[in-house]
Amino acid sequence: MNLRDYVASIPNYPTEGVIFRDISPLMGNGEAYREATQAIVEFAKEKQVDMIVGPEARGFIIGCPVAYELGIGFAPARKKGKLPRETIEVSYGLEYGKDVLTLHKDAIKPGQRVLICDDLLATGGTIAATTKLVEELGGVVVGCAFLIELNDLHGRDKIKDYDILALMDY
Amino acid sequence: MNLRDYVASIPNYPTEGVIFRDISPLMGNGEAYREATQAIVEFAKEKQVDMIVGPEARGFIIGCPVAYELGIGFAPARKKGKLPRETIEVSYGLEYGKDVLTLHKDAIKPGQRVLICDDLLATGGTIAATTKLVEELGGVVVGCAFLIELNDLHGRDKIKDYDILALMDY
Repeated sequence: MNLRDYVASIPNYPTEGVIFRDISPLMGNGEAYREATQAIVEFAKEKQVDMIVGPEARGFIIGCPVAYELGIGFAPARKKGKLPRETIEVSYGLEYGKDVLTLHKDAIKPGQRVLICDDLLATGGTIAATTKLVEELGGVVVGCAFLIELNDLHGRDKIKDYDILALMDY
Repeated sequence: MNLRDYVASIPNYPTEGVIFRDISPLMGNGEAYREATQAIVEFAKEKQVDMIVGPEARGFIIGCPVAYELGIGFAPARKKGKLPRETIEVSYGLEYGKDVLTLHKDAIKPGQRVLICDDLLATGGTIAATTKLVEELGGVVVGCAFLIELNDLHGRDKIKDYDILALMDY
């Protein structure tokens, strides 16, 4: 099975000149979704992960089945104002603007080994912000896993201290 | 295991007089997250589900591991402007305002049996909107599954034509 067959490429979205890589066909196909999830699960097992963290909202789609399969917890990293209890926050630049990402203060226990999951490694801004949140709570980021890496945006440079898994690249 | 032990209750959030039921402790605990997911999986198996649909963003956290475990696809129902390809849309009233929900036109094939998953059945506005989207694409809504039902808000009345599973109620 070639996972690339389940990625839709949308020219000039969300802005002129950008080709958006859409994983919705992949998650809509049970076999492709399962294969992609299991590849990340294998990576997580090698790293003895205790907890999955995913930024909203597509990070939930990637990270949640990984957490489920491993029998571990999932913590959502969300835009400011979306988490109801006490949070920590970090502001960051992302591909098309600026934003603030938050994590519940009790989401990670000190020393927990955390894998960060998202659909796409683009500029790396969101993921770098997520690593900061996890580390501020005393978590150990043992890797970052993506379905897709966009090579031209050099997101890898922003998270070069971490092991990276990308199932596809463009 | 009592899943209620993993629900945080936050008084006066997001508005005065509302008690917000937060499932983040449940999803953060591997055992609780797995038990809740498996209860929904059992319900889905009885109904011979072909596809899971979940409204953003907490619906992803509930629906995605269910889809993964069943080896079927997941389609996200998202706020307007968040899905990159051709969509259908429906506008609806929700607990604290008004909004437009969308689904990719190719998310559901006619005749597919769909289970809708979300964390919470509140007023039922979001879920009723999701059922409309699925049915407009020719899907058959075979049930709606939630972690929590808020009895006082009578959301059940808005989706009374469907089988409902709620793992907890308040």
